[in-house]
Amino acid sequence: MIRAELNGGLRYLPENYLFSEVSKRVASFKAKFPEKRLISLGIGDVTLPLPRSAAHAMAVASEAMADARGFVGYGDAMGEMRLREAISKRYLKRGIAISPDDIFISDGAKSDISGILDLFGDVEILVGDPSYPVYSDASVMANKRVRLVCANEKNSFLPTPEGLDASPRVIFLCSPSNPTGAVLDRARLLEWVEFARKSGSLIIFDAAYEAYVSDPCLPRSIFEIEGARECAVEICSFSKFAGFTGVRCGWSVVGRELGEIRGLWLRRQSTKSNGVSHISQMGALASLSDEGERECGERVAYYMENAKILARALNTAGIRSFGGENAPYLWVKCPEGRTSWETFDELLLETGIISTAGVGFGTGGEGYLRLSSFASREDIYEAARRLEGGGGRRIFCLIKGS
Amino acid sequence: MIRAELNGGLRYLPENYLFSEVSKRVASFKAKFPEKRLISLGIGDVTLPLPRSAAHAMAVASEAMADARGFVGYGDAMGEMRLREAISKRYLKRGIAISPDDIFISDGAKSDISGILDLFGDVEILVGDPSYPVYSDASVMANKRVRLVCANEKNSFLPTPEGLDASPRVIFLCSPSNPTGAVLDRARLLEWVEFARKSGSLIIFDAAYEAYVSDPCLPRSIFEIEGARECAVEICSFSKFAGFTGVRCGWSVVGRELGEIRGLWLRRQSTKSNGVSHISQMGALASLSDEGERECGERVAYYMENAKILARALNTAGIRSFGGENAPYLWVKCPEGRTSWETFDELLLETGIISTAGVGFGTGGEGYLRLSSFASREDIYEAARRLEGGGGRRIFCLIKGS
Repeated sequence: MIRAELNGGLRYLPENYLFSEVSKRVASFKAKFPEKRLISLGIGDVTLPLPRSAAHAMAVASEAMADARGFVGYGDAMGEMRLREAISKRYLKRGIAISPDDIFISDGAKSDISGILDLFGDVEILVGDPSYPVYSDASVMANKRVRLVCANEKNSFLPTPEGLDASPRVIFLCSPSNPTGAVLDRARLLEWVEFARKSGSLIIFDAAYEAYVSDPCLPRSIFEIEGARECAVEICSFSKFAGFTGVRCGWSVVGRELGEIRGLWLRRQSTKSNGVSHISQMGALASLSDEGERECGERVAYYMENAKILARALNTAGIRSFGGENAPYLWVKCPEGRTSWETFDELLLETGIISTAGVGFGTGGEGYLRLSSFASREDIYEAARRLEGGGGRRIFCLIKGS
Repeated sequence: MIRAELNGGLRYLPENYLFSEVSKRVASFKAKFPEKRLISLGIGDVTLPLPRSAAHAMAVASEAMADARGFVGYGDAMGEMRLREAISKRYLKRGIAISPDDIFISDGAKSDISGILDLFGDVEILVGDPSYPVYSDASVMANKRVRLVCANEKNSFLPTPEGLDASPRVIFLCSPSNPTGAVLDRARLLEWVEFARKSGSLIIFDAAYEAYVSDPCLPRSIFEIEGARECAVEICSFSKFAGFTGVRCGWSVVGRELGEIRGLWLRRQSTKSNGVSHISQMGALASLSDEGERECGERVAYYMENAKILARALNTAGIRSFGGENAPYLWVKCPEGRTSWETFDELLLETGIISTAGVGFGTGGEGYLRLSSFASREDIYEAARRLEGGGGRRIFCLIKGS
């Protein structure tokens, strides 16, 4: 028997990651009702095929690897320069100057979110409640103190630094928010940047859903805010705008203005990883070409139309919901007195719709469900029909018309 | 300025990862002598193109992603079942029964070696000296106590548990060894397994170079040793036998016999990563097909022939070296009184051969250079010529004939 001391933080975590729990409940439902046609609005996984430009570029890069001239071995620890330059240009189109030297390619936002905690000692980690479970799970696993900041109906699901003392922390912000779909406007984001600068804190800005911001007044990058370069890291991903959930590519922006932190990040990345598949990087590069951007834009528009259809159906059914305007997620209020797992089970049973229980994103998410718009149009119409029909109404009747 | 406490272990590490230091010295040499034709026997990166079967499978998987039927999003946290089954079969061919349920696909051995430290609390990490720098670097970064075990000429570069007290530890073993090319025989490995079981320690067996073991008496997997299932994890990679250094795919075997550890590993992997590129996994799967194994075998044989040519040249030149028989690395003794970085610089200057300074693998590597056989045959012949000729002899003359 292994007697080496195990990581207390890791052991303390519930056994299942949130989406494993969703899968478990769905599997048990399927075993009971094998004929029921389920509609998955649960895990935030894209469903449209990959942009042709990206798929084709990867096929070409793959075949080239069988040839001496096209073969590529270990890459640059920061990722391929062409890709970093293309990301830099993507920022520049929106007026944001980011040097390719400050862009680090990774295999996705999840890796960067958890990996960046390696840079810190005994610090308090500020996490929105509710929020993407990886912020708190990875922090607990790293034996950090986690402090939750409420994101509830009162503050429009947008946490604020109000009431926090000025000790230096690591602050996770996600905008557009997973799971609530709320977006930090310039004023709120400036408030956080000013708080971070005053307190010597570092903001980790998770911009994985930035492409879903359609309102031009809302920021898509924290670097649109003055002073952010001195206090923020941005993490972004090809998963949600280019459909790369199975291809794996993302990036972080860790600038020289953060002092020692950039060098430590490079050291961390080059020691603990051998970089990202050359083929995935070539796909990512193609998704940033003119044709690639057009294809990605179509996908984002498709999912946002899905979100609109869902929002309309919820509204028609008298079910209260938030988000879905500048984000692919809808945050749905459960009936009075019902927990989110209860409502999850009831919705599954009555309508066959798979959602995600809000409490899985933190206790502040209790009493809500998250619906994802990353589904086929056909499924979205069917989900809308079921929500508007008897099933949806029966479950949510208690808050009908509220 | 960020005032959040930084990770002391990470800050304590020298700024450069070993191979970044090699690159820096080479770049400065190139700037001074731009015409000199360099031969890289430094970083252990493969040079032969990818097996056609793997490249083609990845091209097919890439194009399929642009189609609704072929699209793949988030995968199973443990990796695709087909690939885990194929790895299981690969073990079975050598008589080792490993369940696909105990195989975890990753993006490479480096990630697993550093990631598995997340499972432990305050434990001492046992690391060979010299050894692959990631064992100690990742341990220091995780603020673990590192204890070095000598691997020197006296013990044939094979560390033993002799003299260690019986407290539970995490023990890194690498066989065939990077950098020395030494291979643990059954007796030595059994000694470690017995020590681990007695002390409640966990062995992390790095088998990245197992395909280079040609002597049938030597073990290629720790699971060939009785009792290993109760005390060992094995980490392996497609990098060195299938040429996947730029494609990224590897695996770990973490069995149920290890009790709580398997569940914690799954929780760690699913929380901190979203798995491995579907395309890389399809390439890995193809490299395990009959045709893929044939192509991989050719590559391993090619590099081993390289190692033989290098060993012969070193011997002819009267330069003392070890390894290279069941491993792609040669471990070369520096002239008396010369440090390994001095010899690195002299070898580069006199012969244009890029090596790796042994001290980069730990103080126990001082006085040695590592030569890699992962080069083209043409380069290997040229390196042999230069070593046998004036340049090699001039540098190493002090130990000539020893």
